[in-house]
Amino acid sequence: MKPKLTVVKLGGNCMDDDALLESFLASFCRLPDPKILVHGGGKLATSLSRQLNIPAQMIAGRRVTCAQTLQVVTMVYAGIINKQLTARLQAMQCNATGLCGTDGNLVSSVQRSAEPVDYGFVGDPVAVNTSLLKLLLDSGYTPVVASITHNGDGQLLNTNADTVASFIAAALTAHYDVHLLFAFDKKGVLADPLDEESVIAQLSKAEAVKMKNENKITDGMLPKLSSGFSALENNVSCVSIRHLSSLEAVSTTLTL
Amino acid sequence: MKPKLTVVKLGGNCMDDDALLESFLASFCRLPDPKILVHGGGKLATSLSRQLNIPAQMIAGRRVTCAQTLQVVTMVYAGIINKQLTARLQAMQCNATGLCGTDGNLVSSVQRSAEPVDYGFVGDPVAVNTSLLKLLLDSGYTPVVASITHNGDGQLLNTNADTVASFIAAALTAHYDVHLLFAFDKKGVLADPLDEESVIAQLSKAEAVKMKNENKITDGMLPKLSSGFSALENNVSCVSIRHLSSLEAVSTTLTL
Repeated sequence: MKPKLTVVKLGGNCMDDDALLESFLASFCRLPDPKILVHGGGKLATSLSRQLNIPAQMIAGRRVTCAQTLQVVTMVYAGIINKQLTARLQAMQCNATGLCGTDGNLVSSVQRSAEPVDYGFVGDPVAVNTSLLKLLLDSGYTPVVASITHNGDGQLLNTNADTVASFIAAALTAHYDVHLLFAFDKKGVLADPLDEESVIAQLSKAEAVKMKNENKITDGMLPKLSSGFSALENNVSCVSIRHLSSLEAVSTTLTL
Repeated sequence: MKPKLTVVKLGGNCMDDDALLESFLASFCRLPDPKILVHGGGKLATSLSRQLNIPAQMIAGRRVTCAQTLQVVTMVYAGIINKQLTARLQAMQCNATGLCGTDGNLVSSVQRSAEPVDYGFVGDPVAVNTSLLKLLLDSGYTPVVASITHNGDGQLLNTNADTVASFIAAALTAHYDVHLLFAFDKKGVLADPLDEESVIAQLSKAEAVKMKNENKITDGMLPKLSSGFSALENNVSCVSIRHLSSLEAVSTTLTL
């Protein structure tokens, strides 16, 4: 039997809220090893872009990345957020090691075609260096992965963090029984967006498509669901969507 | 006999000059493995601070680091520069892996006392996790280390990159015969600052003190020399100061 591994994707919106972040990190530390944390860092990148007078544009929960925005997201995701998360986890006795997709060729990607929508310097993952992750995990380190990847030819590419988490989770199923948790600021997928308690316990792909068509699922939830179902289709054992301050709590589990 | 290891400290001023950087990276790739690259990223941090209206202040080649400046240097050193260097080295078939001092507790430090000069969030290294570096080196990775460290209690600290390079080099002498190269935009230490060819072949500590007292060595060269002599005093075999575009060339070698 393969050892269990948990891959947690942290939603970006808690980085501004210190108490919420602290509660997430404590919850993450309580998860048994081995584990991996994957993050982006949406709002901070948006505010830094604004300070630098770079226009920020989102389409269906995904950022459009011009050359300047690529610099900003690399600085924010792989720089300040990755290193703050790592330093705080270290302070909690979790031996966190920050990385992004370029590091040891961890996640390589191809720049997305400009058709039908030109997202700029955005990459779709094509390969994961699982041996680097396994090397670190086997030595007691907890990889903390920022969602910046590269094309192998020197070009950094902004990559959706949900996609990176799903891709890493799927790649590691060769070695582990992988559980993928999407941690965000709701208790799960809500049947009624206005009722925080209306968590859907199990959500099938067909039901998710129906909810999307009825506009009951929008924006940032869309990449989580498509990444989550993709992970299930690629041998990840369990995918769930949980509140970031209580990763052990009842939540939405995805089913095919 | 211990295997040879080369630690290269890259001076920050080539990050704006793409041709110079390319020539440095090619030169770095030609060095035999195992090797480690250490960098800061001075000018880019200064210009980003200016864009964000954060005043930049330097004392004796060392940056004064307020909370906002700490954010900027973390974004610039550990974010954009570390990841651009790593991606470009990857494109040159060097299996570079970017890290900073927080990652796997690579370099821990203590915040410098506010007396006699208050440098703010600046750390002096106290320990290196040599086992992480050895793990990566033994597996064929080339660590690329940004000079951001942490105090183990969640606080990031800006640390002089020359000091980090020297400290890492000295720590690794337990396992390797370590050579430390400071790569910058001159051919070595110049006897006459106006004559680029007046490279001093061998510079002793006593001669360096004399030159400092005569104001022939100033600014950014001071931390290079003090870090270099400190490395020699801590079992590093060879310390030299070279032009970043030809790391194999004749240069200044330090002696005690």
